[in-house]
Amino acid sequence: MYIEKINSPKDLKGLSIEQLKIVADEVRAGVLNRVSNHGGHVGPNLGFTEATVALHYVFNAPEDKFVFDISHQSYPHKMLTGRAKGFLDVSDMDAISGYSSPLENPEYDNFEIGHTSTSIALASGLQKARDIIGGTENVIAVIGDGSLSGGEAFEGLDTASEIGTNIIVVVNDNEMSIAENHGGLYKNLKLLRESNGQAELNFFKSMGFDYMYVNDGNDISRLVDAFNKVKDIDHPMVVHIHTEKGHGYKPAVENKERWHWSMPFNIEDGSLKAINSKESISSMLGHWLLDEMKRDEKLVVITAGTPASFGFTKEERLQAGKQFIDVGIAEEEAVALASGMAKRGAHPVFSDFATFFQRTYDQLCQDLAVNGNPAVFNVLGATIYGMNDFTHICFFDIPMISHIPNLHYLAPTSYEELIAMEKWAINQDKYSIAIRVPEGPVVHSPEEYDTDYSDLNKFKMAHCGEKVAIIAVGNFFQKGDAIRQSLANDGIDATLINPRYLSGVDENMLDGLKKDHQIVVTIEDGSLDGGFGERISRFYGPTTMKVLNFGVKKALYDRYDVNKLLMDNNLTDEQILSSIKSVLNIY
Amino acid sequence: MYIEKINSPKDLKGLSIEQLKIVADEVRAGVLNRVSNHGGHVGPNLGFTEATVALHYVFNAPEDKFVFDISHQSYPHKMLTGRAKGFLDVSDMDAISGYSSPLENPEYDNFEIGHTSTSIALASGLQKARDIIGGTENVIAVIGDGSLSGGEAFEGLDTASEIGTNIIVVVNDNEMSIAENHGGLYKNLKLLRESNGQAELNFFKSMGFDYMYVNDGNDISRLVDAFNKVKDIDHPMVVHIHTEKGHGYKPAVENKERWHWSMPFNIEDGSLKAINSKESISSMLGHWLLDEMKRDEKLVVITAGTPASFGFTKEERLQAGKQFIDVGIAEEEAVALASGMAKRGAHPVFSDFATFFQRTYDQLCQDLAVNGNPAVFNVLGATIYGMNDFTHICFFDIPMISHIPNLHYLAPTSYEELIAMEKWAINQDKYSIAIRVPEGPVVHSPEEYDTDYSDLNKFKMAHCGEKVAIIAVGNFFQKGDAIRQSLANDGIDATLINPRYLSGVDENMLDGLKKDHQIVVTIEDGSLDGGFGERISRFYGPTTMKVLNFGVKKALYDRYDVNKLLMDNNLTDEQILSSIKSVLNIY
Repeated sequence: MYIEKINSPKDLKGLSIEQLKIVADEVRAGVLNRVSNHGGHVGPNLGFTEATVALHYVFNAPEDKFVFDISHQSYPHKMLTGRAKGFLDVSDMDAISGYSSPLENPEYDNFEIGHTSTSIALASGLQKARDIIGGTENVIAVIGDGSLSGGEAFEGLDTASEIGTNIIVVVNDNEMSIAENHGGLYKNLKLLRESNGQAELNFFKSMGFDYMYVNDGNDISRLVDAFNKVKDIDHPMVVHIHTEKGHGYKPAVENKERWHWSMPFNIEDGSLKAINSKESISSMLGHWLLDEMKRDEKLVVITAGTPASFGFTKEERLQAGKQFIDVGIAEEEAVALASGMAKRGAHPVFSDFATFFQRTYDQLCQDLAVNGNPAVFNVLGATIYGMNDFTHICFFDIPMISHIPNLHYLAPTSYEELIAMEKWAINQDKYSIAIRVPEGPVVHSPEEYDTDYSDLNKFKMAHCGEKVAIIAVGNFFQKGDAIRQSLANDGIDATLINPRYLSGVDENMLDGLKKDHQIVVTIEDGSLDGGFGERISRFYGPTTMKVLNFGVKKALYDRYDVNKLLMDNNLTDEQILSSIKSVLNIY
Repeated sequence: MYIEKINSPKDLKGLSIEQLKIVADEVRAGVLNRVSNHGGHVGPNLGFTEATVALHYVFNAPEDKFVFDISHQSYPHKMLTGRAKGFLDVSDMDAISGYSSPLENPEYDNFEIGHTSTSIALASGLQKARDIIGGTENVIAVIGDGSLSGGEAFEGLDTASEIGTNIIVVVNDNEMSIAENHGGLYKNLKLLRESNGQAELNFFKSMGFDYMYVNDGNDISRLVDAFNKVKDIDHPMVVHIHTEKGHGYKPAVENKERWHWSMPFNIEDGSLKAINSKESISSMLGHWLLDEMKRDEKLVVITAGTPASFGFTKEERLQAGKQFIDVGIAEEEAVALASGMAKRGAHPVFSDFATFFQRTYDQLCQDLAVNGNPAVFNVLGATIYGMNDFTHICFFDIPMISHIPNLHYLAPTSYEELIAMEKWAINQDKYSIAIRVPEGPVVHSPEEYDTDYSDLNKFKMAHCGEKVAIIAVGNFFQKGDAIRQSLANDGIDATLINPRYLSGVDENMLDGLKKDHQIVVTIEDGSLDGGFGERISRFYGPTTMKVLNFGVKKALYDRYDVNKLLMDNNLTDEQILSSIKSVLNIY
């Protein structure tokens, strides 16, 4: 095998085109070996194997700088830059992340990247700095067609074009985003493919870029020719290559959406190694929304390129018809669209992972909340039990969302409370509402939940006790209840409160606690800094009430063990109990 | 005069083209009357006068829906929709804001708008909702060329195109942003102007829009023809009109950047009615940066379309040469560019108003802080003494910025401390740094400030006393000192602390205060919710220390009186003193 002898791109340089093809096949086999055993992005990486071999053959990394958008197509690059063992050897796979990472490889990976549409903008910084400092290297941004719809990609193109010096944007066009592509731009990509790049109407040229098209983006010799032509070019260049998503692995070619990403599977037939039969609350919510659409013709479900995150597979999307809209990777548009729809009397619901709501902070503030338009936003994955990659941490949502004036952030504690809040939020016409979908194991509750949440910031007293009051937020409500029960074993009849609202406090209820409580404890599945608990601490600051806030310390986290995370943050039930007792002087 | 009889666009309907021209001249005179007496946006409104008259003549608002991007060109619209008195009569001017506002006029203004690049995205929501609900109205987004560089505008175009039904985007191309335009896209606008709209290479068509060009965008009869042609069109349409910024007012035509916005002026010669001779700290910072560039060839100053906000007029920009870059209205690009530049060894400094940093939250998190690249961000205007329009409030910056992991937010208390922190931040290579520029009256201090701030979150003890400790943040440090002195008159020798860092606490110093202090007071020129003070409250929550947080309550604010705002928020020196004494039981 060649791949085992390739420790850096320099080891490709002496090879013939025929040998490079063998390397590409070995890289493809390595990618398949990893994703089938470990899970990961399948289709985009398989389709970009030949292009990566050709890029590293023609260009000279690390002097030449690569930036891989969102990293979905960076596995072949990892294999060619000293990390092949993380693909070939099952025991080494955990050491390698699924994303571009200078922490993992400072020489060949230039940025930690996990969000889309950032590559050209980041590369424009490498371009400008090179020009200022006086370097001569090539700057190469690799971006998939699905990432082009994000505003940051457009802003990056606009500036890189004006800078006017060497930058090469490789557009990997496999005719797909995660699901199908959406947006007017894609008509132009289609026109360019169909005209073999010859159409006069050319988005990239209209942005001031020079342009080249390679129809067979899985043919190494053509790719090497193309990249040789643009190497060391003195102006901004787009190389638009047409690749096949999933190339070389039949199941992935035949069902491209299914194979964008996969849990571990059997290579022979593509069947999953383990079936995840657990209920998923976000999928349940998606199904409920699909059902609700039939009763409410004004209800429109919005996604920004990630419909599967709430269970909207192709079938659900077809069923929803006009009541579903995928704006592509374009979260700013998703929020502004929702605000506009709400203004005109429709009932828009936009759902996305918390980490991606970061991409639309200003639209939440300005396009939505300043206007108070009654759109509904489901914040998914906001838990320490969710995605744990460096760039995909979702539990910093409360500091981000809960302090925006006029945006109301609700935290249901069970599936039934989630649905009660959804119903109210969708049907009211006064407030901009975000809902923190309670992730983790699905909790069902027979409780009769309120149907009207317009009495804002009114907490719910779940159990009225004394001495200690526990305010347990959202999906940590059950944890709060467990601690209450443990305290009962010690003879303390603690109060338990479901705050329900994350964007304000119930001053009446908090005032009432002063009478017969000494300690108020807050527990949240999220950040301590700027979190829910700090507002409670502020409220009691001038009083004799003691307050204990439990949550996660502000830091960067990556592929953590969740039990260790709980321990490190003093968040196990035992630790919380012991902290409470210590303040009570009970040991 | 016609204008006094026009109470709604319906009153335009019977007029002839010649009469419409008179109306336009009267509108122009009204705009000039307002801005010369009251200040406001001059050039964009003057240039869009004829187009607004034509739009309201052809379309039927309020049934047809208008969305004016950023509102810089919405004054003529206000005059034609019942608000002419706010332009004609000096005593009525305060009642009318400079921005599109449903609070002011629910019938004709569809959204509160003050940030750029949002119009098409918001309009796409009106478009989609109309289609779902079954309306037949026209949806019209008006956007200036300067706003097109923002990613949200691109995302809006992409989705509106895919929706595929009636939406009319009027591109008001006056060849200018606030300053000159920047970005590759503008080459295409130029090509389209020069080819009278006939060039095959057409950005808007490449996005899937139909397209029409009107070269004389200040000629009512041509505009009426054009709008009549696209009225009730069944698909997405761009009408690209070429207007003259400042049309009809010679000084504004001759110096377009100066006349984008103006303080009150004498119409005859354009001279300002009052010269603002006060020092501005942001301009002083700009001048220092310009000077520093000569010593540091790697220093690059970045703006996103607002170079004047830190005193970079045309002359400064020319002096800075390659060490200055304006990315246009594209804050996401600005932050990503800075991160990329820092990675490659340059010294990028991006300065912008706090309210516009909202537009790049994810880039601060992902492109920058996750990578820890040593770029520097100056957060301008973050004070209750700054811009006070609904959409331009800048004092919610601490909740937004200070909880982002791995981004360090510093708050200098004087010009000299600002420069000390800038020097360190620009020359270090380990941390991503944001600096809260201390706005309000410029404070100079003879203090010897530290030159190294890498001992993160180390607060500075300014005066060591007992009983009461005042932690006074940034530009409220002097306020804290005034309160300390007042307490001294009451025989209390209070401690005074300059925290310097907003993104963490100095646990050692806070622990030390427990010994001989009963109360810790925090004072910040910013939001209580998610602010600096709450972290101090959390720290002392389990202890007997009492904590008082002073800051501004979370709410929407608009054109407030700052003294009333202080009173309402318990923020006057007297109120703060009285609150402290009340907790101390001193009356």
